[in-house]
Amino acid sequence: MTDDHILAVGVDVGGTKLLGAAVDATGVIRERTRVTTPVGDPDGLVATIAGIAGELGPDLPLGVGVAGIVSPDDTVRYGPNLDIRDLPLGDRLRAELGTTVTVRNDATVALYGELRAGAGRGSEHVVMLTVGTGVGGAVFTHGTLVEGRNGMGGELGHIPIVDGGRRCPCGNRGCLEAYASGTAIEERARERLRDEDGSSALRDVATDALDGKAVTLAALDGDAFAHEVLREAGYYLGVGMVGLVNVFDPELVLVGGGAAATAAPILLPAALEVLGDRLLGIGHRPLPTVVAAELGDDAGVIGAALLADDAAGAT
Amino acid sequence: MTDDHILAVGVDVGGTKLLGAAVDATGVIRERTRVTTPVGDPDGLVATIAGIAGELGPDLPLGVGVAGIVSPDDTVRYGPNLDIRDLPLGDRLRAELGTTVTVRNDATVALYGELRAGAGRGSEHVVMLTVGTGVGGAVFTHGTLVEGRNGMGGELGHIPIVDGGRRCPCGNRGCLEAYASGTAIEERARERLRDEDGSSALRDVATDALDGKAVTLAALDGDAFAHEVLREAGYYLGVGMVGLVNVFDPELVLVGGGAAATAAPILLPAALEVLGDRLLGIGHRPLPTVVAAELGDDAGVIGAALLADDAAGAT
Repeated sequence: MTDDHILAVGVDVGGTKLLGAAVDATGVIRERTRVTTPVGDPDGLVATIAGIAGELGPDLPLGVGVAGIVSPDDTVRYGPNLDIRDLPLGDRLRAELGTTVTVRNDATVALYGELRAGAGRGSEHVVMLTVGTGVGGAVFTHGTLVEGRNGMGGELGHIPIVDGGRRCPCGNRGCLEAYASGTAIEERARERLRDEDGSSALRDVATDALDGKAVTLAALDGDAFAHEVLREAGYYLGVGMVGLVNVFDPELVLVGGGAAATAAPILLPAALEVLGDRLLGIGHRPLPTVVAAELGDDAGVIGAALLADDAAGAT
Repeated sequence: MTDDHILAVGVDVGGTKLLGAAVDATGVIRERTRVTTPVGDPDGLVATIAGIAGELGPDLPLGVGVAGIVSPDDTVRYGPNLDIRDLPLGDRLRAELGTTVTVRNDATVALYGELRAGAGRGSEHVVMLTVGTGVGGAVFTHGTLVEGRNGMGGELGHIPIVDGGRRCPCGNRGCLEAYASGTAIEERARERLRDEDGSSALRDVATDALDGKAVTLAALDGDAFAHEVLREAGYYLGVGMVGLVNVFDPELVLVGGGAAATAAPILLPAALEVLGDRLLGIGHRPLPTVVAAELGDDAGVIGAALLADDAAGAT
């Protein structure tokens, strides 16, 4: 078997798009497809994934990452953006395809992709935070993915960092997500544009175009106001990292998600500054490396495929 | 070999006292000793531990738990309360005794004791918080103790929960320890006695006798003011648990340390209330069980001995 042999098929089910890929032994995508996610349609979701598996790699192991709570028996307990509850996705796909099927949370498969084929190669202890519309995450410690008893481990966006603070979409106050997500960056920019004077290119952006990405682009273009808004999010990302590094003592912290590719040059130094100031025992330990993830949107399909290949090898 | 055969010797090195015990295969202590910890005296510490090992179980594996940062090579990097830095305790003891020696952080060995012989028996995912002078902790996930790259994992007391909040002994603001430790309970009681009117039995306690224990005893005795102070600490303990349970998704949260035996009936219900309100996906997962640890001050020596026995069996 050569390294460019296709090992497995990976599928990444997001709230809007569904990616599929045929992945080789080096974690490289050999063929890919992208469709709109069937939302609120469990049968359609099963049929779509089965169709992609049949097209890209019939008879190969199939790995699926899903934006939602996935229990260890490959059942999607709750996918809020997919409008799905208690779908035994693994069993349904196995019955349909007759192959090994592994279903996991989307952040978990993305971390696994980075571990095997991206920025996490060779690391044994890695915390990954994904900054996009929300803040997600996953953890690999002592060579094991932290999934927990019900498959709900790694919900790093909902660590309370400012008890009683800003409202989070989850309904609580003060979660990391309420301070460091793309949505939070957008909200803070709007608040500060309203409450503060100062000039900013963001004042010329149409109201409905003002989002986290617009703030990032302005900041990278030298806008001091936008830069400050982004540094504030990076500061809170750092506060979250202080807790997580105190808990896991990893050698590597990865920042992935939509923001990683673009906002990392501003977010990461701000976060590192907090980590360097506040980590426990800072004189007696090395700081972990903090870098952007490498695989972008491909991390999920690559990780899902490689996890499925592992599972097939283990049986 | 019967179950009452002595397996190993455990030693627990605290900032004031040093406990030693001969432990059998069921995790029961068959013989014990207790001396004052030699502080700022590395040679004295090595000699004291070697003496205890020689007395309780010459030729048996020796496990040592130390209040401080212990690296995976059994070196005490930093023990602030012991005034020790970079002491290769494992190597020194192995040279002296010729037996298997395992050195770990004190919270790690205490959790291991609870896992094998206490409240954690049979669990695969456990978060333990120890509430004493400070707040410590340790984590067992997917059957592995979370020690991290440098042996500094599990520093649960220094997760930021109120960024910019109360000052913590570690120098930062807003750590869990600054809100839920015995010291924090004492400080809050003093502040509220000063700032609020209301009657309380604590007003009759001599100033230098007013500590976390006095608050707990008054609360258990029905003092409403003291009860409220303790519930506040329990609330923040719960805020910390929300983050930790979102991260690890454990089936069990243990509360140990000096407070566990006495304050648990007030701290734990307050913490559970927060957990039940704020845990992510609360309708789609069971709440973890939250209980007091069982072994008290013995957890460390028992866990250290059983870890050393495991290490001896593995070689």
